[in-house]
Amino acid sequence: MEHPENEEQYKGLRVETSPTSPGSVNPYLNFRAKRRKPELTADQYVEGILAGDVTILSRAVTLLESTRPEHEQLAQQVIARCLPHAGKSVRIGISGVPGAGKSTSIDEFGLHVLERTGGKLAVLAIDPTSERTGGSILGDKTRMEKLSVHPKSFIRPSPSGGSLGGVARKTRETIVLCEAAGYNTIFVETVGVGQSETACHSMVDFFLVLQVTGTGDELQGIKRGIMEMADGIALNKCDGDNVERCKLAAAYYKNALHLFPTPPSGWTTQVYMYSGLFGYGIKELWDSIYEYIDFVKHNGYFEERRNNQNLYWLHETIEQAIHSRFYNDPRVIAALQQAEDDVRAARQTSFRAAENVLNTYFGLNSVR
Amino acid sequence: MEHPENEEQYKGLRVETSPTSPGSVNPYLNFRAKRRKPELTADQYVEGILAGDVTILSRAVTLLESTRPEHEQLAQQVIARCLPHAGKSVRIGISGVPGAGKSTSIDEFGLHVLERTGGKLAVLAIDPTSERTGGSILGDKTRMEKLSVHPKSFIRPSPSGGSLGGVARKTRETIVLCEAAGYNTIFVETVGVGQSETACHSMVDFFLVLQVTGTGDELQGIKRGIMEMADGIALNKCDGDNVERCKLAAAYYKNALHLFPTPPSGWTTQVYMYSGLFGYGIKELWDSIYEYIDFVKHNGYFEERRNNQNLYWLHETIEQAIHSRFYNDPRVIAALQQAEDDVRAARQTSFRAAENVLNTYFGLNSVR
Repeated sequence: MEHPENEEQYKGLRVETSPTSPGSVNPYLNFRAKRRKPELTADQYVEGILAGDVTILSRAVTLLESTRPEHEQLAQQVIARCLPHAGKSVRIGISGVPGAGKSTSIDEFGLHVLERTGGKLAVLAIDPTSERTGGSILGDKTRMEKLSVHPKSFIRPSPSGGSLGGVARKTRETIVLCEAAGYNTIFVETVGVGQSETACHSMVDFFLVLQVTGTGDELQGIKRGIMEMADGIALNKCDGDNVERCKLAAAYYKNALHLFPTPPSGWTTQVYMYSGLFGYGIKELWDSIYEYIDFVKHNGYFEERRNNQNLYWLHETIEQAIHSRFYNDPRVIAALQQAEDDVRAARQTSFRAAENVLNTYFGLNSVR
Repeated sequence: MEHPENEEQYKGLRVETSPTSPGSVNPYLNFRAKRRKPELTADQYVEGILAGDVTILSRAVTLLESTRPEHEQLAQQVIARCLPHAGKSVRIGISGVPGAGKSTSIDEFGLHVLERTGGKLAVLAIDPTSERTGGSILGDKTRMEKLSVHPKSFIRPSPSGGSLGGVARKTRETIVLCEAAGYNTIFVETVGVGQSETACHSMVDFFLVLQVTGTGDELQGIKRGIMEMADGIALNKCDGDNVERCKLAAAYYKNALHLFPTPPSGWTTQVYMYSGLFGYGIKELWDSIYEYIDFVKHNGYFEERRNNQNLYWLHETIEQAIHSRFYNDPRVIAALQQAEDDVRAARQTSFRAAENVLNTYFGLNSVR
């Protein structure tokens, strides 16, 4: 997005020129060009955000998604100044494969939370596939019919930043801005694929995994590692003749969870049943989530987890950078291809082949 | 180990000098000094290994564990020349927490396999803690009473190489030498802690996790990630009044395994019950393991897994090296400390702090 200010710039000023007079000079168009909104200063962004100005918040998020160096610099100033005002929210990650009824559920969950807390809700997303597939989650705000028209909700589609690292960074920075703007509940939606769940899990206080039963093979469908990541597993579509299947599935999940050690939070992962469509079980689900929040705030894990997440992203960012510098080096690309061929053909051990690649980059005999 | 040849050097030549004549010159001692074995050439090592000479194999393993540069170089030559003769074994990883009866089990498993295959068995280990604790697994060969005196078994304690990466590398290289020496079954024992299980899993064809029941809380004891790694879970001490508890535990594990997708091998992870002490269930366990080996050799996964393991160690070695170069840089150490402090105090976002660290190492504005 080259011009982050464009999105809001012409809002409400869209005037059609007459197609019958394409050459005519429209004085209103000239006037509009003069009305072009000036770029905001860092002060103006920060003041606007802290005052809860949605338009300025939205422009700031667009700014931080920009790849123009001057925008990046300005965005970093704004974020740095918002940082002391951030952190005072409850961050909930919501994951689920397509078909789990995520949009409907988030719509219902959001309304419930807004009513319950009387506060403001921001719904963000992590979807590194959004650029490739064109079908970003949250891209179409109308999927959340009730939340999208609610005055206290702020819905923002996944940034299309290319790499997961880039997308995750922008979402983390957007959380800072939203919190500074007074949003006291943040939902981070993610698709149940690849590493995006790990990224989401690493920026929320509670990670909720939505599952759906009734397809017959739902018990095969749980992803590797997800049992360890989930703070709660919620079974959607627990309504009608699906209730019995749902109960059976819940029992299976509960049994399986017994096989894992108690998480470091000290909280036993719960299995919930609800119906996004009929609104059953949603209050009970959120009773439990808020019970969790109280529990971990009391035992200190809430702070500890956020602190660890900050350090995680610090180290993750460093890892990504040193990794990418190394593997994008043309000498490394060539040497690695050779090394893989040698290893496949059993001409060299993996270790010896690795040394050759490292010597290419760092100089001969520089490593062992 | 400074002098790898020392271990074998004086074997069978241990002569006590008389304690009553400490000053006397013992001509036999002089003779012994002259009999000091010359260092072998690469040719001699390779020939000896390929001929199945246990003494030379043992010296070669000691050589590759040496940190002296000339030994490292010689060892790499030997390994490179053994490599074309390696690979023709079945590699079984055996993991289990202390108390799972690992030594007794391996003793029984080993005897069973030796009888069954009529071949030779090498028992190796991965235990990065061996140097620190002094109590290496396999350090005391007498823990495996039967195997340690069996003419067709070769037992080697864990190399004490410091880092897990170093230990794993030496174990992988020892596998190459053992296979070249005609050992057609390799056991790799590991303790059920830390990353050593991942390392072990990444060098074997079948990863067996030993569990023990009867302690009451065994179902809490299964480690994160282990369900995904195990090709088989074996419940030991299924004897006497422990049989019922064992059956119950087996049912729980089987249920839990249903929650995971079928592994890429296409093989459903099995749960076994056996008694290392009484020898029950050991044949059935190994029937199943050999059935697995046939199954994956037939569907191509056996080769695919080994190939992936080779590539895994290639990349893992590279990762370790670039990681360690970066994090051991004094500028990075200082900058990282500052970055962590800043992030903890919310003075900077994780991303901004990471950039500062990266700029310290790579130069200003070199990364983004």
